[in-house]
Amino acid sequence: MTAAAADPAGSITTEFSLIREIQGRFGRSDSSIVRGIGDDAAVLSPSDRSDWVVTTDLLAEGIHFDLRTASWEDLGYRAAAANLSDIAAMGGLPKYFLVSLALPSRYAGRHVYRLYAGMMTACRPHRVRLIGGDTSASRQGVFINLTVIGTVRRGRALLRHGARIGDGIYVTGTLGDSQAGLALLQRPRSAPGLKPRMRTFLIGRHLRPTARVREGLWLSANRFATAAIDVSDGVSGDLRHICEESRVGADVEAASLPVSPACRAYANCRDLDLLEMVLRGGEDYELLFTVPASRERRLRKAARTAGIRVTRIGTIVSRAHGATIRTPEGSSRPLPVTSYEHFRSGTR
Amino acid sequence: MTAAAADPAGSITTEFSLIREIQGRFGRSDSSIVRGIGDDAAVLSPSDRSDWVVTTDLLAEGIHFDLRTASWEDLGYRAAAANLSDIAAMGGLPKYFLVSLALPSRYAGRHVYRLYAGMMTACRPHRVRLIGGDTSASRQGVFINLTVIGTVRRGRALLRHGARIGDGIYVTGTLGDSQAGLALLQRPRSAPGLKPRMRTFLIGRHLRPTARVREGLWLSANRFATAAIDVSDGVSGDLRHICEESRVGADVEAASLPVSPACRAYANCRDLDLLEMVLRGGEDYELLFTVPASRERRLRKAARTAGIRVTRIGTIVSRAHGATIRTPEGSSRPLPVTSYEHFRSGTR
Repeated sequence: MTAAAADPAGSITTEFSLIREIQGRFGRSDSSIVRGIGDDAAVLSPSDRSDWVVTTDLLAEGIHFDLRTASWEDLGYRAAAANLSDIAAMGGLPKYFLVSLALPSRYAGRHVYRLYAGMMTACRPHRVRLIGGDTSASRQGVFINLTVIGTVRRGRALLRHGARIGDGIYVTGTLGDSQAGLALLQRPRSAPGLKPRMRTFLIGRHLRPTARVREGLWLSANRFATAAIDVSDGVSGDLRHICEESRVGADVEAASLPVSPACRAYANCRDLDLLEMVLRGGEDYELLFTVPASRERRLRKAARTAGIRVTRIGTIVSRAHGATIRTPEGSSRPLPVTSYEHFRSGTR
Repeated sequence: MTAAAADPAGSITTEFSLIREIQGRFGRSDSSIVRGIGDDAAVLSPSDRSDWVVTTDLLAEGIHFDLRTASWEDLGYRAAAANLSDIAAMGGLPKYFLVSLALPSRYAGRHVYRLYAGMMTACRPHRVRLIGGDTSASRQGVFINLTVIGTVRRGRALLRHGARIGDGIYVTGTLGDSQAGLALLQRPRSAPGLKPRMRTFLIGRHLRPTARVREGLWLSANRFATAAIDVSDGVSGDLRHICEESRVGADVEAASLPVSPACRAYANCRDLDLLEMVLRGGEDYELLFTVPASRERRLRKAARTAGIRVTRIGTIVSRAHGATIRTPEGSSRPLPVTSYEHFRSGTR
């Protein structure tokens, strides 16, 4: 791992000292890491009964984040959480990550440091280790790429293509909070009647989302899920991904979609269509998964025991049916095709 | 893997079709890939007697490459070769790669396609498989991040920190060609007397460098090297990395540095200091490694048999001596500290 060359006053510190500092502060090792930061590549000596899951994600300033509304720590936290979430959606245990940064010369080593600190805040609870990366100059804009590597018991990865007709469709947590939080950051005065603690909750859900690592491991260990994905593009778009990959349709019941009191209050304050917000709002990083009818009772019981919130939002149906939503009034219409792309366009 | 949303006329095609096209064209699978492109993360089921080597590298337009002098295919090729070279420098066998791209909206799917085609040209000879990535919009500038994963026999990775006093210092191939090639691209009329085939050779060495994968595997299999690194920052800077990590010094003999006839002719034409060019010129992606005195004869014999060009350029000495170069006139001076940072600032 090397960093950008020194630049005039106030810029990124010299390569070597910055790497050393990051390595010393954030590069904690464990016995499976033969070599972490500081060589041409990291060397890992993993256990032998696992498959490996690998994900990479690039965040671009002005496309995926805005430094006017997010701190460097927030940015690091969110970038890490988004990647941990991809591992969670595979039922994997995240283990290692690598970071690439490109930064305009006006930023200094302390910005890099704060970014890493935010990433570590997201990674530490899961004991995810920093094993390498690359820091370079950028002519314009900040770019952050994370690669996360995890393990999953051999053959137990939760893929997108296993959903079958009759499976229940479930989601963890609540939907739409992150989009509401982003809107509050962008237009702080847009919902004057909203209670401060609700505002704080929604903004927190946007800036500091929780990757559902525990929930993914639990789904994989108990073989509950036939397919899984994390909600990054909005539940509508992400459910469509499962349908496409599994060659099935979906029948979602609008009334069953889990919404937080804060999100509901926000939609009320601004007179917004709550259903649209919930269907299209991205970056909640909840898990969306399908469960065979024969396993549903057991799933719900186990979820109660484990203290994991899961909500049944619909049923997998035939491909011919398509992907539809039933409103409380009883009418049925196609799930919106467009996904969450206005501020965040790409994810995996 | 998802791609950027559709943009006005001529821009990146819709997410799904582009992913499908890239997957179909470049995402060839093998039995160790449980799941490649198209899920939240790739799933790998590797063999059990290997360590894993992982490297990531971010290239920024205007910092690491210039689309006025390099085609999209060249760019993809070089980005892949730089990462393969990091795996080669560990003695590893590269196996999988993930790509993240950020592109301004004026670029279209065909540019992405050409970039991937270039990457595959570098990867195909080594059967390196594309397993995932992320494509997003960029407000300004093209950014490319590659992550390459390889395997190495357990415990056999070539690290930077194993050089010992008395070891011979060796390098594969020739040095300085890439920098000469870059200069010729930037100022095509700067060396009018240079023979066209020399010009072509030097430019080729810059745009289409060879990652020394075979050589790295050979060094690791035969346990020849005590330390290794790839020459990306210039032999002077990279040898300093080995010295720092191994806590030793180095005594390099200027006369022994391997230089191609084309590079020598180029320096003559432009009346440049050849030694400076060779010491500071980066991105040759040759391997720089150290060999115990007791193994040197065997190394040279094996190299002849295998048809691998290796040159002894100096000796590892005590740390107190520092890193020095002896000129043909017999004087000794410190190796230059600055490394190749004017057009390419970061690498690992």
